Amino acid sequence: MHFASDNTGPAHPKVMEALVRANEGYAMPYGAEAAMERLRERLRAMFDAPDAAIYLVATGTATNVLLLAAMTKPWQVIYCSDVAHIREDECGAPEFFTGGARLGVVEAPDAMMTAEGLSARIAATDQGTVHTMQRGPVSVTTVTERGSVYPLDRLAALTDVARKNGLACHLDGARFGNAQVSLGCSTAELAAGFDAISFGGTKNGLLGVEAAVIRDPSLAWEFELRRKRAGHLVSKHRYLSAQMEAYLEDDLWLEMAAAANAAAARLADGLRASGIATILHPADANVIYCAFPRAAHRRLKAAGAQFYSMGALAGPDDALVPARLVCDWSAAARNTDRFLSILSG
Amino acid sequence: MHFASDNTGPAHPKVMEALVRANEGYAMPYGAEAAMERLRERLRAMFDAPDAAIYLVATGTATNVLLLAAMTKPWQVIYCSDVAHIREDECGAPEFFTGGARLGVVEAPDAMMTAEGLSARIAATDQGTVHTMQRGPVSVTTVTERGSVYPLDRLAALTDVARKNGLACHLDGARFGNAQVSLGCSTAELAAGFDAISFGGTKNGLLGVEAAVIRDPSLAWEFELRRKRAGHLVSKHRYLSAQMEAYLEDDLWLEMAAAANAAAARLADGLRASGIATILHPADANVIYCAFPRAAHRRLKAAGAQFYSMGALAGPDDALVPARLVCDWSAAARNTDRFLSILSG
Amino acid sequence: MHFASDNTGPAHPKVMEALVRANEGYAMPYGAEAAMERLRERLRAMFDAPDAAIYLVATGTATNVLLLAAMTKPWQVIYCSDVAHIREDECGAPEFFTGGARLGVVEAPDAMMTAEGLSARIAATDQGTVHTMQRGPVSVTTVTERGSVYPLDRLAALTDVARKNGLACHLDGARFGNAQVSLGCSTAELAAGFDAISFGGTKNGLLGVEAAVIRDPSLAWEFELRRKRAGHLVSKHRYLSAQMEAYLEDDLWLEMAAAANAAAARLADGLRASGIATILHPADANVIYCAFPRAAHRRLKAAGAQFYSMGALAGPDDALVPARLVCDWSAAARNTDRFLSILSG
Amino acid sequence: MHFASDNTGPAHPKVMEALVRANEGYAMPYGAEAAMERLRERLRAMFDAPDAAIYLVATGTATNVLLLAAMTKPWQVIYCSDVAHIREDECGAPEFFTGGARLGVVEAPDAMMTAEGLSARIAATDQGTVHTMQRGPVSVTTVTERGSVYPLDRLAALTDVARKNGLACHLDGARFGNAQVSLGCSTAELAAGFDAISFGGTKNGLLGVEAAVIRDPSLAWEFELRRKRAGHLVSKHRYLSAQMEAYLEDDLWLEMAAAANAAAARLADGLRASGIATILHPADANVIYCAFPRAAHRRLKAAGAQFYSMGALAGPDDALVPARLVCDWSAAARNTDRFLSILSG
Repeated sequence: MHFASDNTGPAHPKVMEALVRANEGYAMPYGAEAAMERLRERLRAMFDAPDAAIYLVATGTATNVLLLAAMTKPWQVIYCSDVAHIREDECGAPEFFTGGARLGVVEAPDAMMTAEGLSARIAATDQGTVHTMQRGPVSVTTVTERGSVYPLDRLAALTDVARKNGLACHLDGARFGNAQVSLGCSTAELAAGFDAISFGGTKNGLLGVEAAVIRDPSLAWEFELRRKRAGHLVSKHRYLSAQMEAYLEDDLWLEMAAAANAAAARLADGLRASGIATILHPADANVIYCAFPRAAHRRLKAAGAQFYSMGALAGPDDALVPARLVCDWSAAARNTDRFLSILSG
Repeated sequence: MHFASDNTGPAHPKVMEALVRANEGYAMPYGAEAAMERLRERLRAMFDAPDAAIYLVATGTATNVLLLAAMTKPWQVIYCSDVAHIREDECGAPEFFTGGARLGVVEAPDAMMTAEGLSARIAATDQGTVHTMQRGPVSVTTVTERGSVYPLDRLAALTDVARKNGLACHLDGARFGNAQVSLGCSTAELAAGFDAISFGGTKNGLLGVEAAVIRDPSLAWEFELRRKRAGHLVSKHRYLSAQMEAYLEDDLWLEMAAAANAAAARLADGLRASGIATILHPADANVIYCAFPRAAHRRLKAAGAQFYSMGALAGPDDALVPARLVCDWSAAARNTDRFLSILSG
Repeated sequence: MHFASDNTGPAHPKVMEALVRANEGYAMPYGAEAAMERLRERLRAMFDAPDAAIYLVATGTATNVLLLAAMTKPWQVIYCSDVAHIREDECGAPEFFTGGARLGVVEAPDAMMTAEGLSARIAATDQGTVHTMQRGPVSVTTVTERGSVYPLDRLAALTDVARKNGLACHLDGARFGNAQVSLGCSTAELAAGFDAISFGGTKNGLLGVEAAVIRDPSLAWEFELRRKRAGHLVSKHRYLSAQMEAYLEDDLWLEMAAAANAAAARLADGLRASGIATILHPADANVIYCAFPRAAHRRLKAAGAQFYSMGALAGPDDALVPARLVCDWSAAARNTDRFLSILSG
Repeated sequence: MHFASDNTGPAHPKVMEALVRANEGYAMPYGAEAAMERLRERLRAMFDAPDAAIYLVATGTATNVLLLAAMTKPWQVIYCSDVAHIREDECGAPEFFTGGARLGVVEAPDAMMTAEGLSARIAATDQGTVHTMQRGPVSVTTVTERGSVYPLDRLAALTDVARKNGLACHLDGARFGNAQVSLGCSTAELAAGFDAISFGGTKNGLLGVEAAVIRDPSLAWEFELRRKRAGHLVSKHRYLSAQMEAYLEDDLWLEMAAAANAAAARLADGLRASGIATILHPADANVIYCAFPRAAHRRLKAAGAQFYSMGALAGPDDALVPARLVCDWSAAARNTDRFLSILSG
């Protein structure tokens, strides 16, 4: 009953096999291995971005902030939602990597920014005066940190607002596969309108690799220098590319994302059916925010279930306490059913 | 004939096996896995540092600069040699992570700083005035970037100078194992006098892990925040600890370092015996700086040998051109012999 | 009719005279002039801070952010109101000087933070986890950027919350004199509970000097290094200390602040009496936020009045458009009356 | 006998008069006063830089590093001499403002870089690899910190090397007037080949103002944002422009520089004639590095002479101890003669 995070489960066996295969003999370091050239072509095709610069980075935080740093001046505002990972879960990494840019919060019901909110927030950033910070890029997260997935038309509305204001767009796709499966669209459709994309693998069955996709190749050299300078250029790079190749091979990544989403759907259905749990945000992919009585939290924890309780376990039994439940690709139906059974007492 | 770097060879099969074993089931992320607790105890014992904070980081550059950042104010000088990795090969990562500290070059024949040179350089940093940068930590690299290994008494002399000046010491041990084998000492002896140690594994048979050892636990929390903020806190941390456990198990790391050093010794002996090659710096471990005629560079490259030539391949045949040759744990004697054979024409 | 800002008026003649007097002969640079020692004693007495470190800085922005930088780690949150000068009018100087700290907005009706809002915002900053930014100092501005002045008990409530949470407090007193006159208290009373104070002079009749008051002398050396490193250590420092000495002499600063406040009170009374203007925030000192019909904006601008209109001058005549009106020490009653006369048409 | 620095003497009376005149009535802040427009035209003409962006900054350190920050990426090397003010006397301000660039030391006999040394140092900065820092601008100081003044052909040789390497050039002209008088050239001739110039006034009779001259107007907006963000945009800007206007009026600045240089020449002549003092570097302008017996240092200090002794006053009488002697515009011949008389005992 492991619902704490999609970073607690195992990597897919095919990924481990690829890693072992990649360990044969010698390989030039720092991304000069042959697999990286293949990956570049493959990702460019997937993203319909024939000129894109493609890099691999070992963590999602690093991928996000290296991309943002290459797009943002130190005196600019990065527009995002109040629960964006870059704002809530990176200990100020955007501020560090950009040299002191600021995150500007945009109205975001269910963690999804609205085009109107974005327009209003941009308009509120004065221009033409040195006294205020200046307008910078827009950063969108999907799957959001609350589990919702932006419909394609809402993404298009956001990137339209950005483009009309001359601002670049970044997509934090730490759960890109889960979002794509949820939407039933293509990779290129999901990424359309975004200048830079964090294409996540770590939360979806890899040991730890994300791809950075940069449409404008003129930013490539700066990205490379920033990556090295941040200690994020991996010397034995073949172990990154091997993971990513296995990830893309035969759409393993979509298969894993689909499994995770299905497990979450089964869990969400059960929560709704339980009569005692409430889903708090749209659970569009593999992350569920819900609330159920404190006594059930205690029962589940006692039985060994792992998940985040947003509130103390001590207190009145029937008080509703929020919980975050995340399913990874390996979530088994029997564990879900056991969780639901204990939940209902 | 792969002598380009010790980051081009494979990881040790035992490391890969450990990685595959670690992939079973679920594990709490971010270093909360059980293996990490075992590792902490083990490394504390090895370093005779019972209170030390111990962390794993995926790259050597990150390990160095996270440690230095926790030890250095933005307005301080970090004392190091002119060929230190932090100065020559990290694209300014120390400056980035410290918020603008400066590297102060200390006289270093054969890439090894002298106590006199360090004293003189510290004395040249004015104190008590705000106009100049202030004195900060000393950073020592061994195996040095030229292949030499500091004798223990020279390390002690350096750390004595630092201590008498109230300055902390950092050891860049990206090739710690190779240095230890070369000296025939214990881990604690090699690290004595150093407040923070980068204990490398990546160049010695791992996929990519270094341990950061911080003697003073009061620096631990700042290190943790800096690591997260730099995108270097790995979520699926079990894949780091599994590598490091395999590395330490039955002294695999010393076995690999010994193999690399022996391969380099065989190569150095052959170079000396060739009559046409000169060893430029003491080749105390697994890195050799030497020079031989340009024609031999061309012959070797044509035969597929991989190594760094410090000079153009075009030009007079008999001109001496420097080369860097590095042996990793997997270097085979037959390749060394073949290299030497082609060298001699 | 100059109501654009209190930085558009002249310096007081006594200040100019002091400056000319200070120009006699030679003086040691960088604050080693005799006047600085006198000033230190005087300001320590005024602030009832016998051990305080005292510095002079030429601009208010620099004073604020140098103080904050000495109090804040790069990964901390600085709590402030959404209209704080450090947030709205310094182009990200706090982020730059702190190395990437973040401003955390606290609920602030009429631009004054509430103790409840501050408590809630601090509580919302998770502790004990590296994923989020950490709690840092509280920065309070009074006179606020909307013209209100915190009553002493509200200041005490804020600094109490900070102290109970182990957080330091900074007071942005760019208009310290105007606030003190408004409250009718002593300097020590107004500054009680604050660890670091920006004591402004530029907006109140000087050419450009603020005092930085740091209660804890252990922060002094870091402040000095940061000031130098930021290019804010003035070599011909006697011209700063001369201004500040004239400012304090015979309470000239309070006399000027009282004149500015009185001029603003006269203007506010006239606005209220006009029947067409509305005061939007408490006008407790020398800054007035109000709104009046667009036609009146146009009339006043056409007559040469200088003030900020928060809205376009083109549009329907009778639409209410907000305005900011600021009185400096030299504001003349006849100009105020003329402004009111034109306002009323 | 004030030879400690050219920042210890008074401002010129004409400058004080201009300051008092500028204090009449109201003036728009932040550089919007009328005088600034006149100054821009005047400085553009002087520098033969019709499109140049022109700004005023209150300190020399800030002027240097704001210009350098606008010209340098965080991962670049700034080439300068080992005794450049930006390296020795700014407590790491270049590193702070640039976000961690590095100062690369160029061979500089008598504190003047050679074209050959610059070429060699640039060539030693690898290109095309992310592992090393990248090539950045060249920063030249004249009058140098040792008192020498680059001949025009040597400046041209340096800027030629930079241009051929595609690198920009910065001139630290904190003593621009003294250098120009020493060379007998025009302002445009001295500044030819430099992309950005710190045109100093503080050391030459002003209270504290330097002009920043940026030939390429496309850098102007970034400079303005950086200046504001660093707390260096002065609100009551008229007091800066008034000083600079008085400085340029009727070539007052050249008159003051000539007076300072003449005083230094008289002093240098006397030192040479004394038989006991040695001039250590070419004393081409108003700064003299020399050495004379320790006993003379003691005699002079006892008589109240102010200057920097580079060595302890305690020790053998006849040991030569270096000294720095600086003359400002107000240096009186009688003080020079008295100094020389005491020197000779």
